[in-house]
Order: sequence, then structure tokens, then C-alpha cells
Amino acid sequence: MLYVVGIGSGNERHFTKEAEEILNKVDLIVCYKNYKKFVERLNKPIYTTGMTREIDRVDYALKEAKDKDVALVSSGDATIYGLASLAYEINAVKGYNVDIKVVPGITACSLASAILGSPLNHDFVVISFSDLLTPLETILKRFRCALEGDFVICIYNPLSKRRKEPFLKAMEILAEFAKDKDYIIGIVKNAGRNKEEVVITNFKDLYKNLEKYLEFIDMNTILIIGNSSTKIINGKMITPRGYLDKYKI
Amino acid sequence: MLYVVGIGSGNERHFTKEAEEILNKVDLIVCYKNYKKFVERLNKPIYTTGMTREIDRVDYALKEAKDKDVALVSSGDATIYGLASLAYEINAVKGYNVDIKVVPGITACSLASAILGSPLNHDFVVISFSDLLTPLETILKRFRCALEGDFVICIYNPLSKRRKEPFLKAMEILAEFAKDKDYIIGIVKNAGRNKEEVVITNFKDLYKNLEKYLEFIDMNTILIIGNSSTKIINGKMITPRGYLDKYKI
Repeated sequence: MLYVVGIGSGNERHFTKEAEEILNKVDLIVCYKNYKKFVERLNKPIYTTGMTREIDRVDYALKEAKDKDVALVSSGDATIYGLASLAYEINAVKGYNVDIKVVPGITACSLASAILGSPLNHDFVVISFSDLLTPLETILKRFRCALEGDFVICIYNPLSKRRKEPFLKAMEILAEFAKDKDYIIGIVKNAGRNKEEVVITNFKDLYKNLEKYLEFIDMNTILIIGNSSTKIINGKMITPRGYLDKYKI
Repeated sequence: MLYVVGIGSGNERHFTKEAEEILNKVDLIVCYKNYKKFVERLNKPIYTTGMTREIDRVDYALKEAKDKDVALVSSGDATIYGLASLAYEINAVKGYNVDIKVVPGITACSLASAILGSPLNHDFVVISFSDLLTPLETILKRFRCALEGDFVICIYNPLSKRRKEPFLKAMEILAEFAKDKDYIIGIVKNAGRNKEEVVITNFKDLYKNLEKYLEFIDMNTILIIGNSSTKIINGKMITPRGYLDKYKI
């Protein structure tokens, strides 16, 4: 049996009871090498591979899961940019016939939202800026559609040292939309982990100080761009649900 | 101190360790009356109000939180259609000056995704079809933008006995987009709760049997509409991340 388990930030307090129980009962944990530190406390055999070795990792987990209980661990939620789909796909393509169960976890945008205040409190989009597996045009088209819909936008994998183009092009699109208004932007780096850092700013500042932000933002950073109603209340980033427009208090 | 706590589906296995610890230490729990059953096991005083009494509930929680530790409980995640923003807003408007901390939870779309397979495994939109606080035109415009961006679309509060119009109008929009392709649709009712029900179908079937689905779908139902890559693998709804388009296995 293969469990694809989301462990949230990796911080023990963000594990669900279900994730904890399953990791305590499996025979083997398989994960990305940098996440080993999050599951060592469970005292289980751990198999790791590095970045871009996702296929090997999933294939190994499935083969082992033929006669063992195996947990394939994703950070955040296992189906949100995690390895759940790949597990189902490889299982079918290779005919392994392994039973798969997905165990949901706290995805990074939920956690970033809680840290920033409550920016996700209305309709939102989750989009990854990694163009490793998605064409850049698709990413930019989606980003534009999200802005046209006045969605709150949550960006995963915003940029890395070697991959700045999607971010820079998206900021050019945002600049068009920001001509006659501004956008509040929340940035959370290392959410729930060591060296967590939080910035709440607006697009004008980000665009003016792009070099500084390009240094600061990395793959462990979540960016949340507010919608037209998002505001700052007592230093927190808040997207109202709309109660106070409709009801008097 | 006010904690705004997401408890996921309400099922004990979806509580995070953090939510559990906080609910165990507070002096009072405040929640929607139908969620009382999810927190009774914690043996705390519980204050509840009914549907549409959100402002009273939050106001009461804030007032009590001036000299007590209070948990305002949301199902799912506290910032995703939960009461976190309203707490920050009322706290500021009424000058209560209460410290607020948000505790993230498993939002319904993560859980529905895990149950269906892995449909959220690429860029997606979360949108509520409730027009109680959001104009119908805004909902429909966002829905159209989401389809134009080929996002996976996750719909909260799809319809109720008295509120069918947003759903019906959205299905008319989807029918336009479905002229030359079909959309896989996953439906999860009562995710993680008693009487959980799961349907995986496609738009053509849903549209043809609309009356049947209007009976089935309710406010405790999550609908996930796939993107152009979403497929069914061994009875599960899967949106590939793209690994197998790029790499050979």
C-alpha cells in the first residue's frame, strides 16, 4: 500500500493526526532529501532522492509498496504540486497495481495566509511560476486571466537563482494592471520553518525595488497578490469576505 | 487572545497538532451550531450561533477574548471562506484591540482532491458560488476567466435549495467552453464526514442529467472541474503535473 502524505510545512505542529498515524505505521518513508529532517523523528527507514529525481523517487516508492506499507511524503498538500498524480500515473503505466491513498496536508498558501493575516478570504488562484514542466506562455496566460478575474493570486515557486524569467515577465503584466490602482502583496519565506520571514508591501514598492526582491524571494517563498478589496488592517493583509459591506455593525 | 482555528472536515483525523493543542488550552470555543459536534470531545464551554449569524459570533468571540483565550472555529481553513478576515475587521472597527492568531486547517478542496485522486495537481482556482456576499456578475466573470486560463476549478458552496441561479448560469458558461471538448468533473459530498459520497463524471453527463445533479449537490459538496489535461486513471481523477510529457519512464 502506498500512502502519499502531505506534511504541511514539515513543522510537527502542522502534521494532521492522520498523517502522524500513517507515518508511524508504515515500513518505509520516501521523500526529497531536504525533507528528511522533517520525518527523522518517526524512526523509520527513509529513502531519499534529490531535486529533479521525482520519477525515481515515486517509482522506488511504488515498487517497495507492492509488499510493504510505504509513505511517499510531500511537503504541503500531496496533491497541490506534490507527487500524488505522478504516483497514480506511474502505477498505471508500469502496471504495478499498487493501492494508493492520498493523505491531505496543510498547503503552503493556507499557512502563508494565516501568517499574513487572511488574504485568501475570497476567491483565489494558485499558480506555480516554475516553467520546468509548464510552458512559460501557459503560466503567463493564466496569470493574466487571474488578474482579469480580480482573484487573489497565490504564487508557488516564484523564482530561483537560475529561473527568474517567469517572475519578471509576470511583473510586467502586473504593471499593466497596476497603472490605475495598486496591489497589496504579501511575501512569506520559509513559512513555518526556521528563518521564517514576512513582508507585506504593495506592487509599486516591489516594482521599484525589484533587485532587492529578486535577492529575497526564493523557491521556499510564497507570494500572495491581493484582489481589489484587499487591505492592510493593523499590519495584517486582509481580504474581506464582504460581511461589512452588506451588514451594519 | 483570539485564535481563529481551522479544523478541516471536523473529523478528528484532519485536525492538526496545533489546532488540537490550542483547542485544548482555550477557555471558550465559539462556532457555528452545526459544528458543535466536532468540538464537544474537547470538553470546553461552547458558544454557538446559526447560519447568517457570523457577525454576532465573531463579535462575541472578540469580546470574550479580551480577558480569556478563545477559539473561533471554522471548518476547513480559517482564512478560506472562514471567519478570519471578519475577526480582523470587527476587531479594528470596534477598537477591541484583541490579539488574533490564525491557525490553518485542511481546506475542503485539499480533502476533496485527495478523495478524488489528485485533480488539484496543477494550477487551480478556488471560487465560491454563494452570491450572498458577492455579486453574481463577479462570480460568473471569475468563472469565465478561470475557464479561459484552463485552470482546474474548485467550487465551494455550489448550490443550495434556495440558491441555484449561480450554478445554473455557470453551467451555461461551461457549456460554451465544452462545445469542442469535455471536462472531467469530480463531486465530493460530505468530505471526511458521515455519508461521504463521491462521483467522478464529465460535463456532458452533468449537463444532460442536470435535474439529478441539482438534487444531489448541496452546500456540503465540493465540485472540481478538471483542466484540459485532467484524466481518469483507474477510476481516479488525476491532473498530471507534466513529468511524463517531459521525461521517459
